[in-house]
Amino acid sequence: MTTICVDVMGSDKGPEEVLKGVAAALAADAQLSVLVAGADEYVTPFCAEHEGAKALVTTEVIHMDEHPTQAFRTKKDASIVRAAAAVHNGEAEGLFSAGSTGAVLTAAAFGIGRIKGIKRPALALPCPGVNGHHTVMLDLGANADVRPEVIVQFAHMGRAYAKVACGTENPTVGLLCNGSEDTKGSEMALAYHKALAEGNCGFIGNAEGTDILSDTFDVIVTDGFTGNVALKSIEGTAKFLVGQIKEAAGSSKKVGIGALLMKPALKAVASELSGDRYGGAILLGLKAPVVKGHGSSTAAAVKSGVLACAAAARARLPHEIAEACSIAAK
Amino acid sequence: MTTICVDVMGSDKGPEEVLKGVAAALAADAQLSVLVAGADEYVTPFCAEHEGAKALVTTEVIHMDEHPTQAFRTKKDASIVRAAAAVHNGEAEGLFSAGSTGAVLTAAAFGIGRIKGIKRPALALPCPGVNGHHTVMLDLGANADVRPEVIVQFAHMGRAYAKVACGTENPTVGLLCNGSEDTKGSEMALAYHKALAEGNCGFIGNAEGTDILSDTFDVIVTDGFTGNVALKSIEGTAKFLVGQIKEAAGSSKKVGIGALLMKPALKAVASELSGDRYGGAILLGLKAPVVKGHGSSTAAAVKSGVLACAAAARARLPHEIAEACSIAAK
Repeated sequence: MTTICVDVMGSDKGPEEVLKGVAAALAADAQLSVLVAGADEYVTPFCAEHEGAKALVTTEVIHMDEHPTQAFRTKKDASIVRAAAAVHNGEAEGLFSAGSTGAVLTAAAFGIGRIKGIKRPALALPCPGVNGHHTVMLDLGANADVRPEVIVQFAHMGRAYAKVACGTENPTVGLLCNGSEDTKGSEMALAYHKALAEGNCGFIGNAEGTDILSDTFDVIVTDGFTGNVALKSIEGTAKFLVGQIKEAAGSSKKVGIGALLMKPALKAVASELSGDRYGGAILLGLKAPVVKGHGSSTAAAVKSGVLACAAAARARLPHEIAEACSIAAK
Repeated sequence: MTTICVDVMGSDKGPEEVLKGVAAALAADAQLSVLVAGADEYVTPFCAEHEGAKALVTTEVIHMDEHPTQAFRTKKDASIVRAAAAVHNGEAEGLFSAGSTGAVLTAAAFGIGRIKGIKRPALALPCPGVNGHHTVMLDLGANADVRPEVIVQFAHMGRAYAKVACGTENPTVGLLCNGSEDTKGSEMALAYHKALAEGNCGFIGNAEGTDILSDTFDVIVTDGFTGNVALKSIEGTAKFLVGQIKEAAGSSKKVGIGALLMKPALKAVASELSGDRYGGAILLGLKAPVVKGHGSSTAAAVKSGVLACAAAARARLPHEIAEACSIAAK
């Protein structure tokens, strides 16, 4: 049995949607149990009705607009704080939340704690590519400024995750840059390039923005500032294109019929990009896997996120990361 | 009559495709003449056949894999070097090239020269958004490292270009960042934010990657490293989605018919994103407008690029930029 703690509060869609996702995850995985953290009125009736669900009743919530560290200090009974503590205490082996990124990162880093030797945790996501290939990209926003030696650790963590999540053997690593040539880059990117080249971490060269959704690299590393801009540029483009297609479909009857016939295919494409498959980004470098769902996660995304978190816990991802980083450090 | 110099060499698709685009631009604009720079065998017969086209015969080409500054120094008769010199000498009022970015930037910066007071030229592109809105984004790769006072100049240059290219009055400016809150950013982005807030340049706050293809800002500024990553992430996403749709269309007869009915609409969407409308990015800050087409520019993109360059020359873009920056400096 694998137990995952789910913070059902803090999502834009409300606790009901998160609970629907938890129910779907429980139905899909007989070896899963869920510790459900949130307000009494939501979690108690849910756990009475669902076998495998246990309530962790909390009275506070950290909202999107609150300062994460301050809220973490003052709201001792917030769902995400209690959820992280439950993982720390061994009541659960992983954590899923669709709450505010800052609150999840803070509660997880302080509440669960880093793997020994890991300098900075990083947010990672397997991005879809051609021919079913996935590229693990990190950091997606946990650290705006990153030193070169930390980028090398990101490479090791990304490789461990690519093995666990995508089954990739001996993953290749690229550095997100403004050109594929070795001479390209900001001063910082050139320093990253040098550190990666010396880092014995599968580094094969610079990646461009066009390489993220392709099959050129198994892992792409970058600082959290650049990674966040790239990921949100991808999200914005998908949203823009879907909007343009919808607009075109409304413009003529012929195009409208075409769109109707294509709808299931378009939905599948949108779902592949929306992160529904993995349910969100995973925070790597902590003593337990933490999956951070989108603030507007659907029940389907929550289900994927909880299952992905359970899979990472079963594959002993933190152990794999510790090993990858300590072997490299020797 | 407005004369634009077109470097017909250095494009991935060969001089023939560029010349097709020049012919289309000449046919579309009776007030346009083109100085056609390139090898004798291409430009001389073309100019004999096309009224309004004058040959600038050159014997050398700077290729994609050459070191730009070195090639600029040694290949005195390269098409892009001669083209920039022709603009400098007043034989043409603007320059279009689909050659290597490095070669175009170097030849233009040294050959045409910067507007007095401009610290660094920047590459800009009007990106499509919702409801026909366009957001001018810069820098897209001319400067990997940018100081805060230079970002403020980018804001002024971007605003002048938004007025000329998109007709936007009093354009708003955003800073590309890893979050919309003022407190978000790398150390450098926080320094940019402070400089922009004090810069009297229409700055209204941080922009995220999702804001690029929307209608939230009229101008988005960033350093050339981040801008290049964002632009290429957008390009990569569009390519990925078009590929996925094509794949889906081949997977079932029903979806295939849908795709066929939607084809013109999908093509229009792809064309809007491919930069065909403006024919490429424009280099701002030089004494004449320089449009840099994609290496694989189609004839349609070359036509748009030449016409956009002529429009910028007619609107006296360099004068507008000088004024925007000098008024701000007072």
